Amino acid sequence: MRATIMYGAGDVRVETVPDARLVEPTDALVTVTRAAICGSDLWPYNQMPPSESGRRMGHEFIGVVEDVGDDVRTMKTGDLVVAPFVWSDGTCVLCREGVQTSCLHGGRYGSDGVDGGQGEAVRVPQADGTLVVLPVERDDALMPSLLTLSDVMSTGHHAALAGRVGPGKTVAVVGDGAVGLCAVIAARRLGAEQVILLGRHPDRVALGEEFGATDVVGERGEEAAERVRELTGGLGAHSVLECVGHGESTLTALGSARPGGTVGRVGLPQEDTIPHAVSTFFANIAITGGPAPARAYIEELLPDVLEGRIEPGRVFDRVGTLDDVPNGYRAMNEREAIKVMIEL
Amino acid sequence: MRATIMYGAGDVRVETVPDARLVEPTDALVTVTRAAICGSDLWPYNQMPPSESGRRMGHEFIGVVEDVGDDVRTMKTGDLVVAPFVWSDGTCVLCREGVQTSCLHGGRYGSDGVDGGQGEAVRVPQADGTLVVLPVERDDALMPSLLTLSDVMSTGHHAALAGRVGPGKTVAVVGDGAVGLCAVIAARRLGAEQVILLGRHPDRVALGEEFGATDVVGERGEEAAERVRELTGGLGAHSVLECVGHGESTLTALGSARPGGTVGRVGLPQEDTIPHAVSTFFANIAITGGPAPARAYIEELLPDVLEGRIEPGRVFDRVGTLDDVPNGYRAMNEREAIKVMIEL
Repeated sequence: MRATIMYGAGDVRVETVPDARLVEPTDALVTVTRAAICGSDLWPYNQMPPSESGRRMGHEFIGVVEDVGDDVRTMKTGDLVVAPFVWSDGTCVLCREGVQTSCLHGGRYGSDGVDGGQGEAVRVPQADGTLVVLPVERDDALMPSLLTLSDVMSTGHHAALAGRVGPGKTVAVVGDGAVGLCAVIAARRLGAEQVILLGRHPDRVALGEEFGATDVVGERGEEAAERVRELTGGLGAHSVLECVGHGESTLTALGSARPGGTVGRVGLPQEDTIPHAVSTFFANIAITGGPAPARAYIEELLPDVLEGRIEPGRVFDRVGTLDDVPNGYRAMNEREAIKVMIEL
Repeated sequence: MRATIMYGAGDVRVETVPDARLVEPTDALVTVTRAAICGSDLWPYNQMPPSESGRRMGHEFIGVVEDVGDDVRTMKTGDLVVAPFVWSDGTCVLCREGVQTSCLHGGRYGSDGVDGGQGEAVRVPQADGTLVVLPVERDDALMPSLLTLSDVMSTGHHAALAGRVGPGKTVAVVGDGAVGLCAVIAARRLGAEQVILLGRHPDRVALGEEFGATDVVGERGEEAAERVRELTGGLGAHSVLECVGHGESTLTALGSARPGGTVGRVGLPQEDTIPHAVSTFFANIAITGGPAPARAYIEELLPDVLEGRIEPGRVFDRVGTLDDVPNGYRAMNEREAIKVMIEL
């Protein structure tokens, strides 16, 4: 079969790899019908040292169940399924506590002999705990929005929950990438009154406004935080959703929160310390978040997607085939595209 | 009148100062009957540069209302009142949101012309928003426990709430000072099943066990975190209550939390960065807390004190007069005493 391999920064290739196949009795073999390139794929795209063996890529996909292991109970051949961006057993203590991303028997696609999602097929471990069967056909018009449940929409929702968004709250979303845009959707969905989007790409903030952002802040750094405070009666936002992960965006996020507020982090941190330990302490600002337990959220968000109440699939502004994946990375990296969907 | 002034590290004196008097119509004039020395008073006791004018000390006290300004409605001359460790108006947006420590019109005792609590009398600004009338006589046997509502018991409760303690949860309390010991009380009060106290002073951990600690860990640093993980099925505690504020105790706290867990900070941070930004992110560990909105908690905790269900006053293991204050600082600093109460 064919799949995407990254051999180093800027070096993404689609190549022939061994066919995916069942290994464990808890596996499902899934033929991919839709996949996506993730903002987090751009970190190695910019930083990965050269590697001879390379790294299998992709962790957002929808596909058709081709075959299942003997222990799989909740799906059968022919089912259309969506995959959260990590696999998890759904039964360990941490899964039961809602932290499927820390599953004691879970893991990540593209490593430890598990295929990546940007390829023709994937062996999905712990299929019962991981995959969610979709009640639609494989070419349904809702496919882009359903695909976002794999990661970006679930991640935006996690930012909003971790950031304690609720009815009547003021929210600042730091970052106008696909996750930030989905965080706008999530904040409005949870009842936020004012949603301030911090971003400077005209096409992205325009989409953010269509998703319900009430204000846009184009400044960066401390100036951006100052603008957020101005827009919130001088106090800052109740909930700040950090959707970038850079040192500067983290500073902006912390500076944008009001006393007693919360900064929900979903951007992958690029630095290993959190600044402003003292001022956040005195202001009782909570710092929360992490990778989204997408598996838990798919079932919660699915009805809203199926009934058209939210349209996160609009973050896909480019569609290609598997052969277009290398160019898709380039386009996202150069901010030509917000997010690229692959049709197989 | 006489009051406590700190002139620099290790230099605490009781001296004559101008009598406290009403200034604003929202003030109350309070004659202090009980005061305490706080663990946070030891930070300047160890670090304060020499100062000619000195700094008025003390922020935990109970007293009798001597007089009130024209706008004060909720207390009258002769009432016994307990003071939270900061004053606040109770009506601004941040007070209404439960963050009285960030009150837009609030402040701290001992600065800006407001007296400290370790003295004969205090002008309390924003009296209606700040003071809570106590339904007991001034020499009631419950006085030590009532005095802890000013700060340490409310702070322990804040650690537990910020750390999301709840029924059946496992809790690790980092620090066996008066706040840590009150955090043990608070954790049990909120239903925690397992409460692991990290401390190495035999008298303190013994009291902690009487307060309900189920396990004691005497190790420090990463070894302590490892012990907490061992005691919690290898996972770490759901709730970690950081009651020290040192860099090392913060590392221990972060390392003791399980994925999806929470570190509630109430120890005054001595460093301005929080370490482990990446590992806490991947484990979805929330970092919360700050100074306790004691004003909000006094009313919640008061019935439990009055009915003897909790006895936080047992953290006072030394009682003295105003003249004993300098020696009280020394005794607490040298770990001879857990916490000192002053009777006036």
